[in-house]
Amino acid sequence: MKRSEIREAQRRTAAFLHAGGIVLTQQEIEAIEVAGFGLGQLEVQGLQLITYVNTDRYCAKELVMFPGQTCPEHLHPPVGGDPGKMETFRCRAGSVFLYVEGKPAPAIQVIVPADGEPYYTVFHEIVLHPGEQYTIQPGVKHWFQAGAEGAVISEFSSTSRDEFDIFTDPRIERIPVIREDE
Amino acid sequence: MKRSEIREAQRRTAAFLHAGGIVLTQQEIEAIEVAGFGLGQLEVQGLQLITYVNTDRYCAKELVMFPGQTCPEHLHPPVGGDPGKMETFRCRAGSVFLYVEGKPAPAIQVIVPADGEPYYTVFHEIVLHPGEQYTIQPGVKHWFQAGAEGAVISEFSSTSRDEFDIFTDPRIERIPVIREDE
Repeated sequence: MKRSEIREAQRRTAAFLHAGGIVLTQQEIEAIEVAGFGLGQLEVQGLQLITYVNTDRYCAKELVMFPGQTCPEHLHPPVGGDPGKMETFRCRAGSVFLYVEGKPAPAIQVIVPADGEPYYTVFHEIVLHPGEQYTIQPGVKHWFQAGAEGAVISEFSSTSRDEFDIFTDPRIERIPVIREDE
Repeated sequence: MKRSEIREAQRRTAAFLHAGGIVLTQQEIEAIEVAGFGLGQLEVQGLQLITYVNTDRYCAKELVMFPGQTCPEHLHPPVGGDPGKMETFRCRAGSVFLYVEGKPAPAIQVIVPADGEPYYTVFHEIVLHPGEQYTIQPGVKHWFQAGAEGAVISEFSSTSRDEFDIFTDPRIERIPVIREDE
């Protein structure tokens, strides 16, 4: 992703949070992580993240999704003595369609991103509206898509080690190189 | 505290959060913890808590304080193999004056509750406005008071075991008996 695209997504994320009454410091706005997963289609498969705190004991983030944006399927494996990240998603605004391992829904309510279709394999559906939450156990494959108004999700979890996440789509780079604008 | 007082504080807490754009489910509203610490003066020394999740790995709560309300001085000791609760306070709305061990402020900006004065002993001052946060290390004594508009504080932490908290004021009961109304 180019630096200019990242800046624009950061600006849009901060505006989205501001509208929902969530305040960030200027330093936090500049540190918003814009994850395009190296796929070059941020609006389709992408996610914006604000990490409030990540210690060796716990982590808290705000996840922001633009309307219809999808975070691709992945899992959090054990790392050293850690059994893998356990995470609780709490919907704060908008809505989110979350898919995890388990009994698949007869017909899911969202459309899988066409470009990544073979790499979406779990279809047990959980729909979260503001005030609703769900805890994802370590090692469980999951992916999620925002509803038509986008979504703000508070993520409460054990320590986050994103660089170890395992994505189903082998093309994905969790932390790709940023290209400076020419 | 009487059941009716608790219900009224729950109602007020939910309204306060609602005004700040934070949505709770009906079940969560009914489970709001109203902590008066057995001192019988909730408006002076008291705190309202919503526990979103508390696993053996992490915990997340929303703390709500009415204008000028104070959470009395306490610390989180080691419990079994756990080194003690580590917690990050993130101010979401209003303002909070937080006091921890360390170099005392020459003159603190709030008034210590008269009734509990001998039991406030740490005066290193941190002031948090929306978007600002501070992490309290395990075993460190701390207390905090809301500003004139009250406060909403997201607490991200390691596992919470409130029943082991050590309060400076020996009169305090962290989890007192609720009296039914006559």
